[in-house]
Amino acid sequence: MSATPRIAAVDMTAPDSPGQRFEIPADRPLKLDSGVEFGPVTVAYRTYGAPNADKSNAILVCHALTGDQFVADTHPVTGKPGWWEAIVGPGKILDTDRYWIICANVLGGCMGSSGPKSIDPAIGKPYGLTFPVITIGDMVQAQARLLDHLGIGQLFCVIGGSMGGMQVLDWVSTYPERVFAAIPIATSYRHSAQNIAFHEVGRQAIMADPDWRGGDYLSAGTLPHRGLAVARMAAHVTYLSEQALHRKFGRRLQNRAALSYGFDADFQVESYLRHQGSTFVDRFDANSYLYITRAMDYFDLQAEHGGALPAAFEGTKTRFCVVSFTSDWLFPTSESRTLVHALNAVAANVSFVEIVSDKGHDAFLLDEPDLHNTLQGFLNGCAERRGLRGK
Amino acid sequence: MSATPRIAAVDMTAPDSPGQRFEIPADRPLKLDSGVEFGPVTVAYRTYGAPNADKSNAILVCHALTGDQFVADTHPVTGKPGWWEAIVGPGKILDTDRYWIICANVLGGCMGSSGPKSIDPAIGKPYGLTFPVITIGDMVQAQARLLDHLGIGQLFCVIGGSMGGMQVLDWVSTYPERVFAAIPIATSYRHSAQNIAFHEVGRQAIMADPDWRGGDYLSAGTLPHRGLAVARMAAHVTYLSEQALHRKFGRRLQNRAALSYGFDADFQVESYLRHQGSTFVDRFDANSYLYITRAMDYFDLQAEHGGALPAAFEGTKTRFCVVSFTSDWLFPTSESRTLVHALNAVAANVSFVEIVSDKGHDAFLLDEPDLHNTLQGFLNGCAERRGLRGK
Repeated sequence: MSATPRIAAVDMTAPDSPGQRFEIPADRPLKLDSGVEFGPVTVAYRTYGAPNADKSNAILVCHALTGDQFVADTHPVTGKPGWWEAIVGPGKILDTDRYWIICANVLGGCMGSSGPKSIDPAIGKPYGLTFPVITIGDMVQAQARLLDHLGIGQLFCVIGGSMGGMQVLDWVSTYPERVFAAIPIATSYRHSAQNIAFHEVGRQAIMADPDWRGGDYLSAGTLPHRGLAVARMAAHVTYLSEQALHRKFGRRLQNRAALSYGFDADFQVESYLRHQGSTFVDRFDANSYLYITRAMDYFDLQAEHGGALPAAFEGTKTRFCVVSFTSDWLFPTSESRTLVHALNAVAANVSFVEIVSDKGHDAFLLDEPDLHNTLQGFLNGCAERRGLRGK
Repeated sequence: MSATPRIAAVDMTAPDSPGQRFEIPADRPLKLDSGVEFGPVTVAYRTYGAPNADKSNAILVCHALTGDQFVADTHPVTGKPGWWEAIVGPGKILDTDRYWIICANVLGGCMGSSGPKSIDPAIGKPYGLTFPVITIGDMVQAQARLLDHLGIGQLFCVIGGSMGGMQVLDWVSTYPERVFAAIPIATSYRHSAQNIAFHEVGRQAIMADPDWRGGDYLSAGTLPHRGLAVARMAAHVTYLSEQALHRKFGRRLQNRAALSYGFDADFQVESYLRHQGSTFVDRFDANSYLYITRAMDYFDLQAEHGGALPAAFEGTKTRFCVVSFTSDWLFPTSESRTLVHALNAVAANVSFVEIVSDKGHDAFLLDEPDLHNTLQGFLNGCAERRGLRGK
């Protein structure tokens, strides 16, 4: 694991940090699902492309648990390409020559939006665990305030995978008039018991690290990078399918001809996982990981609507494209199918595509031609309906 | 998590500890797969029932990763019933009125057999990481020496689930003349990349705990119970199916009417997992967990036979009953099927039963009528062939 965490190498809270930022003032706070009124709040975001005359070409991209607003440009901490450059850019599926793409770091995140790593202005120290527990709905509320600020009435489209898809569903449920088209990918209307269980393992790994210090590690000058790395490793296994792990690594050995009869990383899959853990701690805040996993666990659109999922979408005019992957065992097709049945029950306009892929949950981030074709077709049709010009 | 680990409450290495023990002397050491010659070695075991005149009624039960020799009587540390009392006992499927049941704590274990917790006689301190890395084959070799000691030439049957099933397969491959019937349950002929990955998460969780102290915690007077609890939690999720977690817990809250908006165990599944972690550390040694998971990762009967799995069973006369469970995603039916194809390729006598169950990998330990009927039928048929009298 990394001996020299570099999480502070780029201070995303600094005024000159990359990207744009929007401030929700303390006198117009967010009304959180917990009942807390919370402000001031910073929303850090990135835009790609440009608005058309009536700002009807805006697409909101919602990022997943460990994603951020750097969808299509170089990540300021890792130096790696944006996480969805496969589909966002000039001439690509989310065509920045045609659409105005917006992505905000979620509330609770660690890439510039207010989160547990941020300084509590009341005391001049990081919030740590005094940051309020937030929900997917709270994240969406912060995004809605950003859209108000940007002068966007109705989004042409809101799209996202995994936790991003939860935000998509919360968007259409909470602000039905503000979403023309919605694309929830590899997601669910509520987090399953198994997924809560895996998240709890990650949280316990972080909280078991003595360097976590009850959440006050930033004040203490420590970083719980061992616990966070273990949490990331556990989660990462769930993002891949058994088939993908078998294909990529199988039982192949790492830089050796024979078993070592020791506890080094004999197998490539072990080496890969350790690498995933040690690089993650360089870019992610442990407390943000606690808060964001909690928000996902709390997500249950069905319970929020008295146990009747269709009620979440009553009267919707939004066009939906629901996408799942055959080998995604974290958000299996059965959950997307339940969602589609609920949408059908309110006579919503829904396309549902289950894509054959052996890449597991992470397929939505990868070069999946069938996904790309699906998105391209759906977006083209919606753009025509919405009267958006082509290039 | 447990603040007062009680792992030393019962010293299973003490001469008066429960059960029986057999010593492999230093001058007749085990020849380990690593090339190390290792001895003296203690094998702690339990027997139930009694041998018939020619000792042809012996059944060897092989335990899983965190199991032990207390198959059918009260566990000396936890005070709980034996782990397979559902099927082992008078008049039960492994009928102790008819069969002589033997179960040994595996080499590397922590319930009395030699393992990293044992005292290295050369230095008078626990082995810790100086204990040699062992394999499934080494465990089986130690069991074979125990059978020599007990005067058992051929086992009537060898049976086990999960890692116990790996031992079953190693038995018939290494000592084909010594096994009349074999019942590998919920297992595989080699550990998959995904399973290695989950094990690696657990090992990293243990080794990330500062109280692990490079494996020397017993000498240091600490116990890495936080890391071990996280390892157990991660593993435990894999032992259950999504359906079982949903049925048992769903999204039900733990002793509360509403979400707490905090990091306590809001959900029953969180509370359950935390309990699994905290009770496990009371009965299991962290270094044993490292060694035994490593042994499972190393298991690959196909690679050991030049990439041709049928060669592992060439000429076998053993009768096989291969059992898998539909909802077991850790050792899925596809792996049992590959095993059965290999057995078919050498014209072995094989029954193969995939049991419909939503209980996941742990189904083999639970009250599963279809499993019990399958075992009963197979054992009765084999007993008749072997000329064993009924009750």
